[in-house]
Amino acid sequence: MTQNLQESAFLKACRREPAPYTPIWLMRQAGRYMEVYRKIRQRYTMLETVNQPELAAEVTLQPIEAFPLDAAIIFSDILPPLVGMGLDLEFVKQVGPKIHNPARTEEDIKALQVRPPEETMAGTLDAIKIVVRELASRNIPLIGFAGAPFTLASYAVEGGGSKTYINTKTLMFKRPDLWHELMEKLTQVQADYLIAQAEAGASALQVFDSWVGAALNEEAFKKYVKPYNKKLIEKIRSAGKPIIHFCKGTGLYIHEVADCGGDVLGVDWHQDLGQTWETVGDGFGVQGNLDPALLLAPWEELKIHVDRILDQAAGRPGHIFNLGHGLFPTTDEDQVRRLVDYVHEKTQRS
Amino acid sequence: MTQNLQESAFLKACRREPAPYTPIWLMRQAGRYMEVYRKIRQRYTMLETVNQPELAAEVTLQPIEAFPLDAAIIFSDILPPLVGMGLDLEFVKQVGPKIHNPARTEEDIKALQVRPPEETMAGTLDAIKIVVRELASRNIPLIGFAGAPFTLASYAVEGGGSKTYINTKTLMFKRPDLWHELMEKLTQVQADYLIAQAEAGASALQVFDSWVGAALNEEAFKKYVKPYNKKLIEKIRSAGKPIIHFCKGTGLYIHEVADCGGDVLGVDWHQDLGQTWETVGDGFGVQGNLDPALLLAPWEELKIHVDRILDQAAGRPGHIFNLGHGLFPTTDEDQVRRLVDYVHEKTQRS
Repeated sequence: MTQNLQESAFLKACRREPAPYTPIWLMRQAGRYMEVYRKIRQRYTMLETVNQPELAAEVTLQPIEAFPLDAAIIFSDILPPLVGMGLDLEFVKQVGPKIHNPARTEEDIKALQVRPPEETMAGTLDAIKIVVRELASRNIPLIGFAGAPFTLASYAVEGGGSKTYINTKTLMFKRPDLWHELMEKLTQVQADYLIAQAEAGASALQVFDSWVGAALNEEAFKKYVKPYNKKLIEKIRSAGKPIIHFCKGTGLYIHEVADCGGDVLGVDWHQDLGQTWETVGDGFGVQGNLDPALLLAPWEELKIHVDRILDQAAGRPGHIFNLGHGLFPTTDEDQVRRLVDYVHEKTQRS
Repeated sequence: MTQNLQESAFLKACRREPAPYTPIWLMRQAGRYMEVYRKIRQRYTMLETVNQPELAAEVTLQPIEAFPLDAAIIFSDILPPLVGMGLDLEFVKQVGPKIHNPARTEEDIKALQVRPPEETMAGTLDAIKIVVRELASRNIPLIGFAGAPFTLASYAVEGGGSKTYINTKTLMFKRPDLWHELMEKLTQVQADYLIAQAEAGASALQVFDSWVGAALNEEAFKKYVKPYNKKLIEKIRSAGKPIIHFCKGTGLYIHEVADCGGDVLGVDWHQDLGQTWETVGDGFGVQGNLDPALLLAPWEELKIHVDRILDQAAGRPGHIFNLGHGLFPTTDEDQVRRLVDYVHEKTQRS
């Protein structure tokens, strides 16, 4: 079985080997756009769904049952590891994540704990084991994931989402000593967590730096973030799984992102996939990069953009088709099916 | 007087003529970081402050009284022109702007009115006349401004700020006919408004496309926005004033933004000022581009970044020092003074 899994289109593409067709999975493929998901979330909160292994496994498998996707990604969120560090996380309806005790002072940051993921993220690790068993017979790999240190730090400091990241940047600029302490802790927690996901059976590991591009320019990225993303990737290398590194909004300094390492570079929908691949070179696979808003367009319009991406990646092994950001809740399930089928049909090579 | 005004450092830089020193003004230089401003806003709402000419003029002049800035910008907001089109705008405390009757359907968009700015924006036009009189003796030019069609459309459609612009993009992709109708109307309203500001005495005109870069990639910009920014700039050319075009977050396609025309290109803090200037060529002045969050850093840290920007622009006429986005309310007034003085001292050429 394991042998076959390694021969799956997704893992071949991760290794930049020629695949029988371009593999596709979609960020937020398990989520609100699916009726079966909405039904579950009527009964359980976000954190309940994440923390109950059977439930998280069920949600992870929902899109796999519905569409011929080439990889599953464990259903979770990037924020739960903050709970194990001592932060009081709540997903507030209509608002989003809130941390009721944000970490802004020296005392707050020194109090953050680095505990083993087997204690703090047991629900997700157990969910991975269940999903991997279920997927074995279908030869579909499971992706484990975690947030990158900056994105987690921004939530920890701001206490939620932000448009300006001003508290995070104030800490960074005024107290670089504390910033580095916070980033060191987060790097350790996330490295341990990703390695544990690999040990639980995940076949690939994705690191999401969702907000670093919105918050920081190249200079600040190099000084305050890059050393930690690099260190995180080096640490999880020992797990022996392909690493996908996705730093959203970093098109202006993607070469610096690439310099952090990893096997596959996530490309957001602002970037030009062809140009990005040329910039970072053949040492990387690329994953992306359709604007998820285009799934709300008529198929004839959507198709133009899908063709463009496939053309840009044609003739070069290592492309994983994906969106450049998560699926919108208003996406039609039929449109998702059409997209997945079309990518497979158009790229069939045998 | 007019002769002298044309010889001011700011207007010389707009024309890419050598100036005695690098002129500086700061986006949101009139605003919450100033104690005198906060006092006024304790008594009047945002819209009251904007709409009462004497009050708007007073607020416009507050930073000019406090710091040796090289230009004033009329105190207003980009959204009030939407009120004249029939939209019900409110600035909600702690939330931001809300439009209670967003324009999403064919009926909504057809109902939007194109009325003369003398009727709809009389308060701001009168405020400009007052400020220009006050500034004449000090030889300081006044900048008039307006939002670009996309940014206004996004507020009109979303009904407020957005992280995803999903309603706007859904309209754009699903009903391009309605999108173009909406953009045509906004282009007309904003062109008339900017020309009226010039006629009232503004010495330069800035077009703000605050959210286009966050919402759209190069392909979408070219198809759905560029024709209108170009048209707007062509229309207001007849006013005979320098035009500053600022499309935030468009570093990945700044050549397309430059292709819309204008005299000075606004550069946000994500971009590299030197690279941007090289990309767009000598036909443009550049304005920018310090990260406003750096004003919260200690002076020694801030100075490094100011020096870097000044070095990138050195030896080439046409640089207007500014931030790459508006000042934060938590900025210290003394830090602003230090910045303005430092830019003047360091660039003194005679």
